[in-house]
Amino acid sequence: MSVFRSPSNPIIEPKDVRPSREDFKVIGVFNAGVTRLKDEVILLLRVAEKPISPDPKVVLAAIYDVSEGNIVLKEFSEDDPENDFSDPRLIIAHGETYLTSISHLKLARSRNGIDFEIEETPALAPANEYETFGIEDPRISLIEGTYYVNYVAVSPLGVTTRLASTEDFKSFQRHGVIFCPENKDVVLFPERVAGKYYAIHRPASPLFQRNEIWLAESPDLHCWGNHRYLMGLRAGFWDEMKIGASAVPFQIDRGWLEVYHGVDQENRYCLGAVLLDAHQPWKVIARSDRPIFEPQADYEREGFFGNVVFSCGLLFEDDKLKIYYGAADTSICYAELDLDDAIGSLNPP
Amino acid sequence: MSVFRSPSNPIIEPKDVRPSREDFKVIGVFNAGVTRLKDEVILLLRVAEKPISPDPKVVLAAIYDVSEGNIVLKEFSEDDPENDFSDPRLIIAHGETYLTSISHLKLARSRNGIDFEIEETPALAPANEYETFGIEDPRISLIEGTYYVNYVAVSPLGVTTRLASTEDFKSFQRHGVIFCPENKDVVLFPERVAGKYYAIHRPASPLFQRNEIWLAESPDLHCWGNHRYLMGLRAGFWDEMKIGASAVPFQIDRGWLEVYHGVDQENRYCLGAVLLDAHQPWKVIARSDRPIFEPQADYEREGFFGNVVFSCGLLFEDDKLKIYYGAADTSICYAELDLDDAIGSLNPP
Repeated sequence: MSVFRSPSNPIIEPKDVRPSREDFKVIGVFNAGVTRLKDEVILLLRVAEKPISPDPKVVLAAIYDVSEGNIVLKEFSEDDPENDFSDPRLIIAHGETYLTSISHLKLARSRNGIDFEIEETPALAPANEYETFGIEDPRISLIEGTYYVNYVAVSPLGVTTRLASTEDFKSFQRHGVIFCPENKDVVLFPERVAGKYYAIHRPASPLFQRNEIWLAESPDLHCWGNHRYLMGLRAGFWDEMKIGASAVPFQIDRGWLEVYHGVDQENRYCLGAVLLDAHQPWKVIARSDRPIFEPQADYEREGFFGNVVFSCGLLFEDDKLKIYYGAADTSICYAELDLDDAIGSLNPP
Repeated sequence: MSVFRSPSNPIIEPKDVRPSREDFKVIGVFNAGVTRLKDEVILLLRVAEKPISPDPKVVLAAIYDVSEGNIVLKEFSEDDPENDFSDPRLIIAHGETYLTSISHLKLARSRNGIDFEIEETPALAPANEYETFGIEDPRISLIEGTYYVNYVAVSPLGVTTRLASTEDFKSFQRHGVIFCPENKDVVLFPERVAGKYYAIHRPASPLFQRNEIWLAESPDLHCWGNHRYLMGLRAGFWDEMKIGASAVPFQIDRGWLEVYHGVDQENRYCLGAVLLDAHQPWKVIARSDRPIFEPQADYEREGFFGNVVFSCGLLFEDDKLKIYYGAADTSICYAELDLDDAIGSLNPP
C-alpha cells in the first residue's frame, strides 16, 4: 500500500489553535470534518481543551452548565482512591464518569489544502443538555446544495449523534439528536439512493458487548429507521476489537466506497475500506482484509492517545483519496492514497 | 392506592399454553400487548419456552437459525466452570451471552376480558437475523385504523425494537427495526400530536451507565428522530435502578398518561404513572412518587423472576385503568385501578 504523507505533517497542531479561555490549554486538534466550498478546503476541527489546574494534585474537568449558559469547572483530587484516572480520556470519580477534556468545533480554510487559516470564534460549541461534556468528531455531507454536519454530543445523558446544517459555514442551524444513545461514527450518504437518504452508524449493544456497523434510511435526514446490521468485527483481523464509519462514503463505478476505522487487540486505530452495493447499500460487496492506512509516523505513534490514525473525512479528487486524519488524538495530518490501491485492498466477504 | 385484582388471577398460566414443540416446555406467558377489536379484548401474549434437556447436567438453549429456517438447540454443560447460569434469564458461556428461553407471540381473545381463548399457531415467531434469540414484550397501538405492534427482537446483533402491523390480527406485516441496539420498552402514541407521531423509548447508555426514558418523533412510524431525554432514575425512589415505558399512553383531560415500570434496589418491578403535556409530550408535568401498583400477591412475588408486576398494555375504559400484566415473569394477571387514584399519585417534578 503506497501512502503519501504530507511533508508538512502535522498540518495543524494544538499550538496553532488559541484556547477559548486563558485558563484552558488546547491538548488536541484532530478528527476534522472535511468538504470543499468553492475554491477552498474546509475543515471543521475538533478542538479538545483542558482546564489548567493550579494544584498538581487536583484534576479539573470542564462542563457546560445549561442553566448558567457557560462552562464551569469541577475538581477531582488525585489523592482520592475512589477517583480513577487510568484512561487518559476519562475521569471515573466515585463511579461517575467525566471526560478529561471538552471539545468544540472550529473552522479552518485553505486554498492549497495544506496551509490552513483557523477562525477565532468556534463554529459550534456545547450549547445544550446533550452537549455538556463537549461535541466531537464532525462529518460533513454536501446534500442537495446544503452542508450537513453531524457530530457526537456527549453528556451524562449519553453519547448521541446530532445534526446541524449550514449553507456558508458562517451560520449553522441545529436540528437535534438524530441517533439516540449510544451512537457515534455516523456518516450521511451525500445523495439519495432510490429516493431515500442513508446513514451508516455504530450503535452500542451492551448486553451482547458488540459495537458494530449498521445502516439506516430516512425520508428527511432527521428521522431514521429500517435499521439494518451492515458489518461486524472480524477475529484475527485489523478490525477485530472495534469498528466505525470514518469518512463520508463516495460513489465509484462499482458502488459506494466507505473508509472506516478499525481497532486491533493492541489498541491500534487503522483505516480500511468497504465497498457497498450502489443501489442496495445494505449489501457489502468487499472489505479490506488489511488496513489501507496505519499509524507508522512518529506523530501517529506518539501523542495524547498513541497509535491512532482516525479520519472523519476525505476529498475524493483526481482518482485520489485525500485523507485528513487525526494522528494520536493530537494533531491533524494529511495523506493521499490512490483509489486503485484502496480498491486493491478489497476482498469479498 | 386501591387496586382491584381479579379473583381469577392468574388469568393465563404456562399450563394453559401448548408448547410449540414436544421437546419444549412453556415456562412463562406474560407481558402481553393489549387492545380491543370489536367486542373482544385481544392479548398478544409473550410465550417463553425452554427446551427440555434429557441430561440434567446439560442446559439447552433454543436459537432460531436463519439459514435453516427453524429452531436449533445448543448445549451448555453445567460442569464447565466457564459457563455462568447465575441469572435465571441468561447463559453466559465462555464470555458469550445466550438466553435460557426463547419467546414468540400468541394471540388470545376474550369477550369478558378474563376468560381467554388462546390460538394454536403463533401470531409472530422468530423469523430473521434480528430475532434469533426470540421476540418479546409486544405493545399494540391502534393508530388511524391500523393496529401497530412493536416488539423487542433479541439476537447476538443486539436488543432492538421492531414494528409490525395488522388490520385483523390474522395476518401481520413486518416493517423492520425501528429502534436500533440497544433499545426496548417502546410505546407508540395512539395519535399524532401537531401532525407528528411520537414514541417513548429506552435506549442504553453504557459509557455513563444510564438506561432512561427518551421521546422520539416520526413522520411515518418507521423512521424516528429528534430524540429528547424525557425522564430519569430517581435515587431513593421506587424507580431508582431502571425505568421504561409500559402501557401505550392515553389521553386524559390534563395530558397524556403513561403507566411505566420502575425497579428499586431490591429488584422489585412496580408500576407508576407519568403525565406528559398534551401538546408538548416532551414535557413532564407530574410523576408518581410512589408506585400505583406493586407486587404483593403470591403469584407476583414468586415465580420465574419474583417480585415483578410488568405491564405491556392496559385498556382505559369507564374511568378505570384495566391493566393486564405479567406477574413474576410467569403468568398474566388482571387488575383495575381508578383513574383518580392514578392521578392522585402524581407529584410535580
